[in-house]
Amino acid sequence: MNITLSRDSQVRVMESTVANAERYFGQFCSLLAAYTRKTARLRDKADQLVKQLVDFANTESPELRATLRDFAEDLAQVQDYRQAEVERLEAKVVMPLKLYGAQIKQTRAEIKKFKRVQKNEMKQLEKLEKLRQKVPSDRQVISQAETHVQRASVDARRTTHQLEETVDNFQRQKLRDLQRFFLDFVTIEMVFHAKAVEVYSRAFQTLENYDLEGDLQDFRAKMHGAPGHCQAQSLSGANPSPCVPWPPANQDARSTARSHRKGDVESEHSVEQFPLEDLGAQEQGLRP
Amino acid sequence: MNITLSRDSQVRVMESTVANAERYFGQFCSLLAAYTRKTARLRDKADQLVKQLVDFANTESPELRATLRDFAEDLAQVQDYRQAEVERLEAKVVMPLKLYGAQIKQTRAEIKKFKRVQKNEMKQLEKLEKLRQKVPSDRQVISQAETHVQRASVDARRTTHQLEETVDNFQRQKLRDLQRFFLDFVTIEMVFHAKAVEVYSRAFQTLENYDLEGDLQDFRAKMHGAPGHCQAQSLSGANPSPCVPWPPANQDARSTARSHRKGDVESEHSVEQFPLEDLGAQEQGLRP
Repeated sequence: MNITLSRDSQVRVMESTVANAERYFGQFCSLLAAYTRKTARLRDKADQLVKQLVDFANTESPELRATLRDFAEDLAQVQDYRQAEVERLEAKVVMPLKLYGAQIKQTRAEIKKFKRVQKNEMKQLEKLEKLRQKVPSDRQVISQAETHVQRASVDARRTTHQLEETVDNFQRQKLRDLQRFFLDFVTIEMVFHAKAVEVYSRAFQTLENYDLEGDLQDFRAKMHGAPGHCQAQSLSGANPSPCVPWPPANQDARSTARSHRKGDVESEHSVEQFPLEDLGAQEQGLRP
Repeated sequence: MNITLSRDSQVRVMESTVANAERYFGQFCSLLAAYTRKTARLRDKADQLVKQLVDFANTESPELRATLRDFAEDLAQVQDYRQAEVERLEAKVVMPLKLYGAQIKQTRAEIKKFKRVQKNEMKQLEKLEKLRQKVPSDRQVISQAETHVQRASVDARRTTHQLEETVDNFQRQKLRDLQRFFLDFVTIEMVFHAKAVEVYSRAFQTLENYDLEGDLQDFRAKMHGAPGHCQAQSLSGANPSPCVPWPPANQDARSTARSHRKGDVESEHSVEQFPLEDLGAQEQGLRP
């Protein structure tokens, strides 16, 4: 009976291990999926900001226009990296955690099978015990029951051994996977943050180098109606609004590298078009 | 009439400038507020992950428990920095952009006042023109109208000068503020990302140093029922579940620095308790 009780507690350890993994890995999976989604939302907002910055730049004086476009380009590049972060979190962390469910199911089936075999051993033992009390002198019946017990015990030992191996493998795999998932998570985050620091440092320089005096001169000239030009047209009376304060928003759009790149970025954001690269490729920076 | 037409286009430039600033600064404000909110959501998700990691750590073998707690602590620290990012974005970018509306309103009022004065000048001019056609010889009436025109012109010139100054100041302030808002945005982001890289580098080491072999030995010992101990208890029959596979989740919670720190972090997340520091203070790292 000692062995059976010991096996009981062994099964309890196994069941707890598997149930615990199922519970926590499931939670890690849904939390990391949510984290990834929130990161994507953040990227969307920043993309909108990039768009507004480019629109606004097109209505402004040359210096600010150039500065804001450069800044918008940098901000868009951070979103490219954030997009890569989202794709990698999906591929290297969330998906593997999702697939983990299958492994748990299999181990759980093995434990169930073992419990059936264990139950049978118990049943045979009880049967033998009863016969020994009822018909202690019927050697043939008792001998037959003993054979059944023996067979059930052999079965239980074999299954115990198999189960131990399965659960041992399960535990080793679980520990290794857990380490890998979180190492990948940390690596993906680290690469993103490092790239962001790099790009924002450049953006800081761009913004700091902005010299508003040139734009103020430009604005004053516009406000004073670029006089010769405006008055000449006013006198001719042909054009009621000769001094267009700014070019229309779309006038310069085609000529900026930014608005072209932005289009690319947005199409890159669709998961289908963007093949998932290995983490090793991340040092190459942005996708082509 | 040239001067009046020139002033017309001048007012158009001013009105466009102010309307444009109102439109785009409003959009920047709401987009950056949304960006800040999404960042806070991301922080919330990561905080939940930290909590689950600590809970899970408490159910695991010593090596993994220590590793996961250290990792959770690092992840929580990144959220502390993210929280600082959120507070700073609110204080240094979103709020100033919100307050910008008042400045725009004032400039808009000045332009309106100028247009009234300008309209009066036009009216006086038209009146004079009519009188010259109707009663070209009535010197007294015409002289009086000429005086009115002169007075209105002086008014218009003075108001024009005032307006020019107001709009010039407005434009200078706008360009300076825009540069400052985005410089602050970039600085806040840069500081956060740099801190995140630092903390995640440490987390990477923690996770990579995890040695699962010790935990596997520990697990095997548990699975084989820490034999002497388990069997002794089984034989006494007093305790039906002698081998508790893991300590209860809350057993170790009090003894970990992490769970204590986490409480602090969560209370720090409330805006009220957390005074906004100057950006200069960010190099000091986390709040006490």
